[in-house]
Amino acid sequence: MRPRFSFTLAAQDGQARTGTIAMRRGEIRTPAFMPVGTAATVKAMKPEAVRATGADIILGNTYHLMLRPGAERVARLGGLHRFMNWDRPILTDSGGYQVMSLSELRKLTEEGVEFRSHIDGSRHMLTPERSMEVQRLLGSDIVMAFDECPRADQGRDAIAASMEMSMRWAQRSREAFDTGGDHAEGAALFGIQQGALDADLRRASADALREIGFDGYAIGGLAVGEGQEAMFATLDFAPSQLPADAPRYLMGVGKPDDLVGAVERGVDMFDCVLPSRSGRNGQAFTWNGPLNIRNARFAEDTRPLDERCLCPTCAIYSRAYLHHLQKAGEILGAMLMTEHNLSFYQQLMAAMRNAIENGRFALFATSFRQDYLGSDE
Amino acid sequence: MRPRFSFTLAAQDGQARTGTIAMRRGEIRTPAFMPVGTAATVKAMKPEAVRATGADIILGNTYHLMLRPGAERVARLGGLHRFMNWDRPILTDSGGYQVMSLSELRKLTEEGVEFRSHIDGSRHMLTPERSMEVQRLLGSDIVMAFDECPRADQGRDAIAASMEMSMRWAQRSREAFDTGGDHAEGAALFGIQQGALDADLRRASADALREIGFDGYAIGGLAVGEGQEAMFATLDFAPSQLPADAPRYLMGVGKPDDLVGAVERGVDMFDCVLPSRSGRNGQAFTWNGPLNIRNARFAEDTRPLDERCLCPTCAIYSRAYLHHLQKAGEILGAMLMTEHNLSFYQQLMAAMRNAIENGRFALFATSFRQDYLGSDE
Repeated sequence: MRPRFSFTLAAQDGQARTGTIAMRRGEIRTPAFMPVGTAATVKAMKPEAVRATGADIILGNTYHLMLRPGAERVARLGGLHRFMNWDRPILTDSGGYQVMSLSELRKLTEEGVEFRSHIDGSRHMLTPERSMEVQRLLGSDIVMAFDECPRADQGRDAIAASMEMSMRWAQRSREAFDTGGDHAEGAALFGIQQGALDADLRRASADALREIGFDGYAIGGLAVGEGQEAMFATLDFAPSQLPADAPRYLMGVGKPDDLVGAVERGVDMFDCVLPSRSGRNGQAFTWNGPLNIRNARFAEDTRPLDERCLCPTCAIYSRAYLHHLQKAGEILGAMLMTEHNLSFYQQLMAAMRNAIENGRFALFATSFRQDYLGSDE
Repeated sequence: MRPRFSFTLAAQDGQARTGTIAMRRGEIRTPAFMPVGTAATVKAMKPEAVRATGADIILGNTYHLMLRPGAERVARLGGLHRFMNWDRPILTDSGGYQVMSLSELRKLTEEGVEFRSHIDGSRHMLTPERSMEVQRLLGSDIVMAFDECPRADQGRDAIAASMEMSMRWAQRSREAFDTGGDHAEGAALFGIQQGALDADLRRASADALREIGFDGYAIGGLAVGEGQEAMFATLDFAPSQLPADAPRYLMGVGKPDDLVGAVERGVDMFDCVLPSRSGRNGQAFTWNGPLNIRNARFAEDTRPLDERCLCPTCAIYSRAYLHHLQKAGEILGAMLMTEHNLSFYQQLMAAMRNAIENGRFALFATSFRQDYLGSDE
């Protein structure tokens, strides 16, 4: 039987690391990219196709699922894994980010966030304790502590106050997780570092989290509009403030070049809606950079999206066909583009893991950037 | 090598027949249901999944494809089969029906129909000769003669005049098909009987078509709002007016009970958007009748859509999950519901073929109607 949670590093190359998280429901190869399954589905993909891209773990959104179909309902139906037919690990976010970005009439206090659903206007309360309860009802494997993600345009005092409240919420999350009842299959709990772009605040946050103790540590509050340069500058110090023997998860990131730069700086896990959302909108990621399949120059292009890609879309379908599907608004276009993008992201992660194992990550990163950023396609 | 076109009857039971159409690109088991792939895709389905439902042939729409991506473009890209990755037979309609129902500013003359595209307002002309050319450019296996489908609310004189023009167009279609150049893989040409609900007009139409000579014969001008009773009354005489040694294709039909009643009256082939379109809208067909998955009573129903169904959706997913996906507007809901409905239709066709082979079609039809129409689900 697999352990509840273990993280084994296989190799390190510079700050870049590769390893394996072992959990009851399966192993997660790191660096790992987690496709986002917001509403109990990775949009436009069957779960077996998600797995076939190479995904070891997917992400579910606490905020969305608690509103529809409802956490208690999911629990009555046997949990999220059975509900959506995904038997490998699921990480659930805490709802903290989306309750601030999506809900209506929210009221933030030390207790938590009171808000109205963006779907039907119903009134809800999300606290560290309720977030832990919801994630337990869903049957989450990796539970995220409830935090506040402050707006990026606030001053240092507000960022500091928010971070300190998030650390009190992290403590309450830990206690609620530990005393709230059995988690199915032995769940893990991750804390979330805050502090925006400030090294001292990030340090204080990391120390507070380490004091509480978590299975893994997320870097929150980035990818909220600060730009890649500021994000990388923060990642030059933030990962090393966190325990080296636990996985580090950069939330909500990102573009392929973001992932390479973050792995280079010691990040182990990622999630992002970008490959699926932009796939539905006609953007394909390739080793030669992104392309928009709606562009008229693809109308009679018989090549696959990416000559080097191993995905089912690239094995069969031409850019010309994908261009047609996108222009016609066909669901199959969303399906095939999503499958390509998610597969491309997993191929990128596999290439990074391989490069780290072989001690040639710097060369890989240089070569990747030349191809990916250098092309005008 | 398979013949260009052969139709072999294996069994007849009352008026119901079962057999096989053999063509270069594959065999078609009759009675056959052809999923509709309007814009070079059966909506929300990969072609291999369409085949896995049991479909031997799909339908493509000449009107849609000539406007987007364009017949000449499809030809330059290697034809419709390669474009959309379907290597089995494709039947294309003539465009006659949709040019009258979808286009704008159309002008009907003896020559053909001049119209503006509903997509971009561009001006086009569809004639028997152009319809044959478009279907040849697409690489169609079963080409339909260009006809006019008159509105159902017209008087007998107008219906008669329309039918007579359609018969002149059938003659022009035959000549253009025979002289217009090589059809890929050896295509077949079907004529279309018109005459609305009038037995004498249907007889005259059938005689005119037989005189011209076609590989198969369609029954057009039904399923346009006349209701099942009037349609069945027409099918009590129309199929037997057509050659018994050629397949009879009832265009645009229909609901499961329509199919059973039409097979009972001697029809061999069908196409309809109903299973795919209504699947996207949340309607599932089952042996116990249709159900709307959006209904609140399915919110915690852990049963499959249909306990007897063998499709991938019913093997894995609960009504509760499908209800959730539909309520959330998720693409996966459209995918799973479409796959179920298309599979259910093919299972129904297979059950009818089996019943005919075993000489118990009347019993099958009675039992089917009891289950399908008797339930209040």
